[in-house]
Amino acid sequence: MEKRIYNFSAGPAALPLPALEEAQRDLLALPGVGMSIMEISHRSKQCLEVFESCEANLRKLLSIPDSHKVLFLHGGASLQFSMVPINLLRGSGKPADYIITGSWAKKAIKEAQREGETNVAWDGSGDNFKRVPKDSELQLSSDAAYCHYTSNETIQGIEFDKEPDTGDVPLICDASSNFLSKPLAMDRYGILYAGAQKNAGPAGVAIVIMREDMIERFGEETHAMLDYRNAIDKQSMYNTPPVFAVYMVGLVAKWLVETIGGLDKMQKINKDKAQLLYDAIDQSGGFYKGHAEKDSRSAMNVTWTMENSELEQEFISSAQAQGLSGLKGHRSVGGLRASIYNAMPVAGCETLRDFMLEFQKNKG
Amino acid sequence: MEKRIYNFSAGPAALPLPALEEAQRDLLALPGVGMSIMEISHRSKQCLEVFESCEANLRKLLSIPDSHKVLFLHGGASLQFSMVPINLLRGSGKPADYIITGSWAKKAIKEAQREGETNVAWDGSGDNFKRVPKDSELQLSSDAAYCHYTSNETIQGIEFDKEPDTGDVPLICDASSNFLSKPLAMDRYGILYAGAQKNAGPAGVAIVIMREDMIERFGEETHAMLDYRNAIDKQSMYNTPPVFAVYMVGLVAKWLVETIGGLDKMQKINKDKAQLLYDAIDQSGGFYKGHAEKDSRSAMNVTWTMENSELEQEFISSAQAQGLSGLKGHRSVGGLRASIYNAMPVAGCETLRDFMLEFQKNKG
Repeated sequence: MEKRIYNFSAGPAALPLPALEEAQRDLLALPGVGMSIMEISHRSKQCLEVFESCEANLRKLLSIPDSHKVLFLHGGASLQFSMVPINLLRGSGKPADYIITGSWAKKAIKEAQREGETNVAWDGSGDNFKRVPKDSELQLSSDAAYCHYTSNETIQGIEFDKEPDTGDVPLICDASSNFLSKPLAMDRYGILYAGAQKNAGPAGVAIVIMREDMIERFGEETHAMLDYRNAIDKQSMYNTPPVFAVYMVGLVAKWLVETIGGLDKMQKINKDKAQLLYDAIDQSGGFYKGHAEKDSRSAMNVTWTMENSELEQEFISSAQAQGLSGLKGHRSVGGLRASIYNAMPVAGCETLRDFMLEFQKNKG
Repeated sequence: MEKRIYNFSAGPAALPLPALEEAQRDLLALPGVGMSIMEISHRSKQCLEVFESCEANLRKLLSIPDSHKVLFLHGGASLQFSMVPINLLRGSGKPADYIITGSWAKKAIKEAQREGETNVAWDGSGDNFKRVPKDSELQLSSDAAYCHYTSNETIQGIEFDKEPDTGDVPLICDASSNFLSKPLAMDRYGILYAGAQKNAGPAGVAIVIMREDMIERFGEETHAMLDYRNAIDKQSMYNTPPVFAVYMVGLVAKWLVETIGGLDKMQKINKDKAQLLYDAIDQSGGFYKGHAEKDSRSAMNVTWTMENSELEQEFISSAQAQGLSGLKGHRSVGGLRASIYNAMPVAGCETLRDFMLEFQKNKG
């Protein structure tokens, strides 16, 4: 086998090795089936079992209440940016509140603006998206169709540590980049959605968790693939679903249940991993400058800058040469970013921390 | 390894064993990369190479002219049912012609009806969708925005043997179930799209081949994930694409180029495979009754009925017990269906043919 390296990419990102190993072992023929998971009919008993087992493990991990449906949809989180307002804002006669914390929140509101009135409940752009808001700062509409927020901004590296309080207004969350990294108060969410390719699996599927009372709020029938009712009625199989991606999400969820022991434990590991890197930043005397304010720091994406872009580039190249890949910051903000999702082992963060210390010793 | 069986499912369907074997070998770490194809950034050089190599092999196989773009999109063919009229019919002031040959064409026109005027250019429903039309039967609008047809109806088992003649009106094709099964006159197509999960790869990606002059015909800007301009401008990476599915399409295309030797050869093999089963039907003295008229017979999906549903059920169960899986007809038409896409080996069709002869000898 090829040697595996430490992959700090923002997503697609590292996957748990046991999940990859099981997928590899069974890729030509699922046990007892005689066909690859990619070849079986999505209507077959075996495929339904794959979906059911994946959902069961997600329900266990997140304590998803019976009041919430779990869907597996095409199009990633970006299609959810549109499906949410198409189903809930169009024709509602109400505004939709959006909390603008960074690049992804901006993308989400842009699609909503096509479907109705939007209200910016808070905007962190003046502050270069360095923090998330307190509840007391939110300017919510009393009669909003919903309030949308982004629980972790992958590009800026800031994260909410609890759900914003929106009262009776349905809370909608793009949780793409911290989904399954920690426990959530699922009963608080009207809809929570996440592209799989950060913590949950490979690119190609969005997990959508929806409280049943949202259904009464849907507007007129629309295009079949954009209408949540079809996804619900057909249990994510209105058309052929992305079977392999769901299978992989299932293997990752199984790893979280069986190997990690749940999301409380995963959260503890993630915090400890992040702390290794934030300590290296805080103790660098300004050699590494963290982007996020301390109480908004993300446990998933650690972002920082250095004195100039030449030094940053040298850091990235040297790190790459030592098997530490994907540390370049997003082109829209520059600097550096270490994405340390669930599957990044502690040893990966330790190796990066050691590299940071060594690099500073040589260049600082 | 688990024993592999013959899989006659309509899709997802059998994949070429060499493609599965290469995917299995490299699943934990792509050669020279050190990460799984599921883990690498879609912005990485390695991922771009996977997409470019996939496109290059598709271009070679189908002789796709430089005038045509190749896109890899989320949502399967079903989302294309909507994207075609959203981009080309909405606001055009023109009608769209649809040739209604079966279940999939009916689904396609339903989405178009949400966006503008549609004209049924031919309707095979009165005849229980047993055949495709001749050009002389088509009632085309002179000023249509486009004419849409379904090159192979998976459920009914009927197939066009050449493109309908629509003159200067752009021809749009849902080729999901015979894509890559034979050469096509690609210059004839405005847009040809196909869900991958029949001949081209696993579920989770649609291949969309589009002549550049379509771009001038697009209407107003719309939701980012539904606007072809974004997919074109960002080279299929407006959001994270379904990387693994594209990788698999690339392995299947490589198999067609290197092992099969191109689509002329694939077509010959496919015709011979289908003939084995159609001969068993035609020579059964009515024990097996073919659904399609002879000159509309599909080389991909062979459909037939038997005297009663008990006998059909017995056929299906006995076949399953002998490792011949997925022969039940679609629930909307009943009977039996053998889907024999590219990856079904000749030996699979011979085994099924032998089973048909034996079953008739015992029960006929």
